[in-house]
Amino acid sequence: MKVVIIGSGNVATVMGSKIAAAGHTILQVVARREEPAARLAAGWGCGYTTDWGKTDGQADIYIVSLSDKALEGLGDVLQLPGRLVVHTAGAVASSVLLTVSANSGVLYPLQSLRSEIRPFPEFPLLITANQPEDLPVIATFARTIARQVQQTDDLSRLKLHVAATLVNNFSNYLYTRASLFCEQEKLDFSLLLPLIRETAARVEHFRPRDVQTGPAIRGDEATIRRHLEILNNHKDLSELYRLFTIQIEQFYGRDENPAG
Amino acid sequence: MKVVIIGSGNVATVMGSKIAAAGHTILQVVARREEPAARLAAGWGCGYTTDWGKTDGQADIYIVSLSDKALEGLGDVLQLPGRLVVHTAGAVASSVLLTVSANSGVLYPLQSLRSEIRPFPEFPLLITANQPEDLPVIATFARTIARQVQQTDDLSRLKLHVAATLVNNFSNYLYTRASLFCEQEKLDFSLLLPLIRETAARVEHFRPRDVQTGPAIRGDEATIRRHLEILNNHKDLSELYRLFTIQIEQFYGRDENPAG
Repeated sequence: MKVVIIGSGNVATVMGSKIAAAGHTILQVVARREEPAARLAAGWGCGYTTDWGKTDGQADIYIVSLSDKALEGLGDVLQLPGRLVVHTAGAVASSVLLTVSANSGVLYPLQSLRSEIRPFPEFPLLITANQPEDLPVIATFARTIARQVQQTDDLSRLKLHVAATLVNNFSNYLYTRASLFCEQEKLDFSLLLPLIRETAARVEHFRPRDVQTGPAIRGDEATIRRHLEILNNHKDLSELYRLFTIQIEQFYGRDENPAG
Repeated sequence: MKVVIIGSGNVATVMGSKIAAAGHTILQVVARREEPAARLAAGWGCGYTTDWGKTDGQADIYIVSLSDKALEGLGDVLQLPGRLVVHTAGAVASSVLLTVSANSGVLYPLQSLRSEIRPFPEFPLLITANQPEDLPVIATFARTIARQVQQTDDLSRLKLHVAATLVNNFSNYLYTRASLFCEQEKLDFSLLLPLIRETAARVEHFRPRDVQTGPAIRGDEATIRRHLEILNNHKDLSELYRLFTIQIEQFYGRDENPAG
């Protein structure tokens, strides 16, 4: 398909690259800032513009990867009647693009995307169409760049966005604080990498609730006390430790889980 | 080396299997419960006993994988003077085995080990020797079953045990609650697996603080508000969400991190 990429940030960069790699033709990059637009266009062998009025009108699909706020105002500067226009945001309604085109929807990659991290990771695409007749077109396009494609409504997509925040943002913050703790205590954080790898790998084959380990699920109060002594001068980590420990103890106690 | 495995739980199972696979000779399994001891012994082609008095006295190294509490009482039932005896616990002092043998220490796998999860994962070994002359022996043995071997004192090992709790126990609890949330909301948790995989894979090559994404680090209050509405009927998740959001906002605000 012929594609126009609107935006030049992390999501635009990764989506455009995946789309180009899948054999589609990117006609143009449209973005507010010239430098990143020119760079992406050079990589994809297409033109670019920073002028909304010069947006190419001939594409089969327009991929809009702008900030949530910019999406809300897009209809004020861009009209693409009869053209298929999708945004890539997890927490924004599909209707936000109705002011740009009736034929609009969502193509949301459920992944943490950073343009500097190669290779670009695999991701599922959650799709929504404001007009039912556009759904098969979006789905067919989505399947060329993702193995998992699922139709979702706005609420389900938002809920998955919340779940993604838990498993990505919060896990990464735990890694961040653990690495900082290691630096402060002169320990080698790389010793924890096999454990991080294994923890994530297990949920591919086991329910996470069935592979929980550690002092909290064992009700091992002696170790919990020793850990909290260690964290005595690490206020944020102590708060996290206490909340997780209370919740894990309650969750597995209540649940009558055999692992508990 | 000739090895006796003391214990028959998760750690004993995984350690013994790695030791056998590395070409050492397991002489015997010593454990309180007969059934798992017999099963492990059959797998390793060795004998077993449930009687401390019948512990084989001819091994070069005794691997003690018992509960923290059982370690404390081991000297009451087992004496192995002149023999090298190591425990595998993260949060227990190396001195706990001095009542069993002066030649004692620690061989701690920094990993979450479950006997039912194959293949057994890679792990670093943190080693301690109560007598300096035993350290090279423990280190040489450790290197036959682990790529990363590091000498640590009790306090550093305990600190790494705390860090392991953060990155494994707490991350896995986040996965657990996210999967339960998906079940309750009739969403497909498997859609989150590529994200979980990517989040863990990134810390192999990037500092976790440099790859933080999400509404909290962006200061995206509109999305945070929408997420908290979704979590309104999920009390535990709301508590976690609020604490992480406050901490991430403060951490990146204070830190003047470019990603913030």
